[in-house]
Amino acid sequence: MQIIGEKINGTRKNVAAAIADRDAARIQELALKQTEAGVDFLDLNAGTHPSKEIDALTWLIETVQAVTDVRLCLDSPNPAALAAGLEVTARTPMINSISGEPDRLSGILPLAAAHNCPVIALAMDEKSVPASAEARLEIVHRILDATRREGLADELIYVDVLAMTLGTNVDSANISIETIRRVREHYPEVHITVGLSNISFGLPARSYVNRVFLSLAMAAGLDSAILDPLDKELRATMLATQLVLGQDRHCLNYTRAYRAGLFG
Amino acid sequence: MQIIGEKINGTRKNVAAAIADRDAARIQELALKQTEAGVDFLDLNAGTHPSKEIDALTWLIETVQAVTDVRLCLDSPNPAALAAGLEVTARTPMINSISGEPDRLSGILPLAAAHNCPVIALAMDEKSVPASAEARLEIVHRILDATRREGLADELIYVDVLAMTLGTNVDSANISIETIRRVREHYPEVHITVGLSNISFGLPARSYVNRVFLSLAMAAGLDSAILDPLDKELRATMLATQLVLGQDRHCLNYTRAYRAGLFG
Repeated sequence: MQIIGEKINGTRKNVAAAIADRDAARIQELALKQTEAGVDFLDLNAGTHPSKEIDALTWLIETVQAVTDVRLCLDSPNPAALAAGLEVTARTPMINSISGEPDRLSGILPLAAAHNCPVIALAMDEKSVPASAEARLEIVHRILDATRREGLADELIYVDVLAMTLGTNVDSANISIETIRRVREHYPEVHITVGLSNISFGLPARSYVNRVFLSLAMAAGLDSAILDPLDKELRATMLATQLVLGQDRHCLNYTRAYRAGLFG
Repeated sequence: MQIIGEKINGTRKNVAAAIADRDAARIQELALKQTEAGVDFLDLNAGTHPSKEIDALTWLIETVQAVTDVRLCLDSPNPAALAAGLEVTARTPMINSISGEPDRLSGILPLAAAHNCPVIALAMDEKSVPASAEARLEIVHRILDATRREGLADELIYVDVLAMTLGTNVDSANISIETIRRVREHYPEVHITVGLSNISFGLPARSYVNRVFLSLAMAAGLDSAILDPLDKELRATMLATQLVLGQDRHCLNYTRAYRAGLFG
């Protein structure tokens, strides 16, 4: 599992304030805590008005790079902000995201190709998030046609199957999980990811729902997730899922994580 | 999901002591707590030497029936104890268990048939627990041949697919889950159950492993489990799994259970 830490996101009120105030200590604390929790990528979303995004994103990148060398994930729909970010990242970052939307593909995919970046590809287009696994897979086909044409290897693509809240559609997790199965079947080399907590938006006791969804999605082929790496229950669930799926030889990862106090 | 509460089991030291002392209050407390937690059946295992089992099991039955009318599950490999128990139960109990072992089938199945009892059928024979899903399914075929011959409807059979600890075989859960899939495919009307906590025997932080196994097993077709109904985390996981699987219309069960304080 490749974990993308979600906590440095300017659409959250306290992070937005830290960005507005250029409060480096607050951002660096979030970066270090997630690094210690063992993330593979740190998502950076400046979340500000487009006119301020370039300054904010480059500041975020430099602020985070000053304290950790974990790979970054530049999270923006804005090609200009991503291009500016790519200029200042020390290691090749992940780009979050392209989608089936033609403008977004044409604006962002060439940047990803030029830097040979891993890139998150949302299974949606300009119209909406499709309601069925079939329709999401259709968009994934279109995106993979484009990424292959641009010379990006499939293993650089992180297909985000999308999770809509169960609160408005009780089949929502089934659709995401079926999309995972189909994408895995068609594209054995791509990574498959999801913004985990969206599944429980608006529900009470969200953590249980997120954990169960994580387990079932991993069983279907999910090998990455965008999540809160500081949630120890979620982390323990991830390790337990690998164990139950037979992916943890001699139960070593699980027992080591337990001894290291990772389960709280 | 039909839950069989596992706590009144004489192979556990404190329950064995309560049975030896005929401490009705202690047994009734365990019965009431599990009843309040919403079990469908209360397992009663006298766990004593065969010479004392008839007395102990009938005492357990009468003691528990005095405080709850939840259905009982008479847990013994001993036909004489089960026959004695059937004489004193107020409602038709479940029998736990038959298996592919010929003596056990011939000794216990006629009792179940005579009383038209639901009965747990272990997917094992006199030799051992088979190491593969194929071999467990073979035994299930033999048992279902016998139960059908005796006139027991498939929906009275609770196939226990068996869970061996991951601690000695990291494929153990995969085998159980594959067995669930195949039994469900061949026998759409049977119930499928498992003694949940066996999967994590000897491991640390067992609860996470049990919960993940429950979710994945339910996704494969498990519709019953023998478990600790007082484990609120497990209960929340079960409800969250039904929600994620799209089996909880409008999320009503989940949100009601949350409001009722079931999640601790």
